[in-house]
Amino acid sequence: MPTPRGPHHRRSHAVWDASLEPLSVVASGDEVEVVAQEASGGQLRPDSTADELLSLDMASLNPVVGPFAVEGARPGDALVVDVLSVGLDTWGWTALIPGFGLLADDFPEPYLRTSAVDSTPGGGGVQLLPDVVLPLSPMVGTLGVAPPEPGPHPVIPPTRWGGNLDVRDVGPGARVVLPVGVEGALFSLGDVHAVMGDGEVCGTGVETSAVVRVRLTVAPGRAPRSPVVITDRQSLRLETTVATTGVGPDLMEGARDAVRQAVDLLVEERGVSREDAYLLLSLAADLRVSEVVDAPSWVVTCHVPRRLLAGWPHV
Amino acid sequence: MPTPRGPHHRRSHAVWDASLEPLSVVASGDEVEVVAQEASGGQLRPDSTADELLSLDMASLNPVVGPFAVEGARPGDALVVDVLSVGLDTWGWTALIPGFGLLADDFPEPYLRTSAVDSTPGGGGVQLLPDVVLPLSPMVGTLGVAPPEPGPHPVIPPTRWGGNLDVRDVGPGARVVLPVGVEGALFSLGDVHAVMGDGEVCGTGVETSAVVRVRLTVAPGRAPRSPVVITDRQSLRLETTVATTGVGPDLMEGARDAVRQAVDLLVEERGVSREDAYLLLSLAADLRVSEVVDAPSWVVTCHVPRRLLAGWPHV
Repeated sequence: MPTPRGPHHRRSHAVWDASLEPLSVVASGDEVEVVAQEASGGQLRPDSTADELLSLDMASLNPVVGPFAVEGARPGDALVVDVLSVGLDTWGWTALIPGFGLLADDFPEPYLRTSAVDSTPGGGGVQLLPDVVLPLSPMVGTLGVAPPEPGPHPVIPPTRWGGNLDVRDVGPGARVVLPVGVEGALFSLGDVHAVMGDGEVCGTGVETSAVVRVRLTVAPGRAPRSPVVITDRQSLRLETTVATTGVGPDLMEGARDAVRQAVDLLVEERGVSREDAYLLLSLAADLRVSEVVDAPSWVVTCHVPRRLLAGWPHV
Repeated sequence: MPTPRGPHHRRSHAVWDASLEPLSVVASGDEVEVVAQEASGGQLRPDSTADELLSLDMASLNPVVGPFAVEGARPGDALVVDVLSVGLDTWGWTALIPGFGLLADDFPEPYLRTSAVDSTPGGGGVQLLPDVVLPLSPMVGTLGVAPPEPGPHPVIPPTRWGGNLDVRDVGPGARVVLPVGVEGALFSLGDVHAVMGDGEVCGTGVETSAVVRVRLTVAPGRAPRSPVVITDRQSLRLETTVATTGVGPDLMEGARDAVRQAVDLLVEERGVSREDAYLLLSLAADLRVSEVVDAPSWVVTCHVPRRLLAGWPHV
């Protein structure tokens, strides 16, 4: 883990709740630095094994650091979050947690890979498999503000107040615009990934701890209806892809079909296990909605980097 | 319209049907060139007006040129289609057709824009609005083979046999791998777009006629479950984006929410009409599935090129 550059915050919480005491009060335009623990909240370690996934305390998953009260923020305002830097820990984990993930029914057993994460300039990225290295694309999975509805709200599902959005473009240089729901906004963040694909299909990215620095700015009266992300060049993928398709009247089933076919291709072409193929797609493949208008059938595409399927279909 | 370089085909059909007489019989590895009419099949012209959309003969929409019988292709084989070139006509149309499109309920009235299409090297692309020029990204919307199920099948909805997939990556340099459903495959193509965004949210791209050259190759015994697209560098988008979100338990509703918010942003920021904003998103914005695992809420993002929303949110 990198050393924080100065004052920083670590205290986390595991529910959204407008009644939480602020961790800190900041002025609009201030920067804050946090040390965000990986999504298991310290329950997994580099030497953990898959059976530990069966005894995880689910209520403490996906902890977020905060909340930060921003002076002057009021319902109807926007909170503009500029992601300034994301310093990754030296390891991460990626898992199949039973009951969780796009293909939960196809993959009922727990499965875990821990990986070294090499953030040094020109370094190795994430070595997921012996012959598969993924370039780093650090991102903050969870950024949100307290919903105005009273009481605790679970931290796993995202809402219009943000939270666990898992938009992979939210890395250094990105900007997230959130609606403010309560006085002070009560902003928190966590759930950093060293790399993740659009969809996060297996349910996890490369989950890692990180030192994250953001700037929090109030834009009076400019609340968006739901969060808006302004991307940075670093989040663009420049790779050609092999895109499997899911064609049919239901986008979710289309997503499943496209991912299933991509799992099969990776297993056939690379000789990896089905579990590793599914993990690999969660980290490196992107789900796109190619068309949603040619009634009654829509097309979801799962874009796998071509270098992972080099040569296919061999004609 | 460019002049075909040699022998070419024009005869079109408007349903998929395994009993259609082949337009031509070709050997595996042969190239074919077709002149594909724009998706109205000649019903719209550069000076058409929106009211003509109300009297379109819907049964002749989206004509495809073919079918081409490929010698030796059998069920269980793959037909590999290499897109070699797409020469665009000098104009195209983009429309809101009542009852059609992702936001059909929000946009009940017909609306039409015809645009000049400038394909000259260094040329102007598509001038959709006085101050909006879109770079060309030619693509073939419809490529497919005859389904084995007897009788006519409509050409608008795609199926596992391909057809109107509307995958925007299918431009020059791309490869599409289709399962073969009947002897000879009976391949056809049409529905060229000068540019289109992932989702094709208003229901149309810049619909244009084109001269399309493809190579057809049989890969024995390698039928994919549904079509697979291998992308080319030309289909990648290199623009940073403003991504609106749709957050909730239904991907289709999430797509609608994200697009609605993007319509509003374009109207507010650029002063365009809601109709033009919706058209612009259909051509230039991409729908991605950012996460589909944080139950019970998924996130669909609508990525609008940042240059179309320069400065937003102005803090």
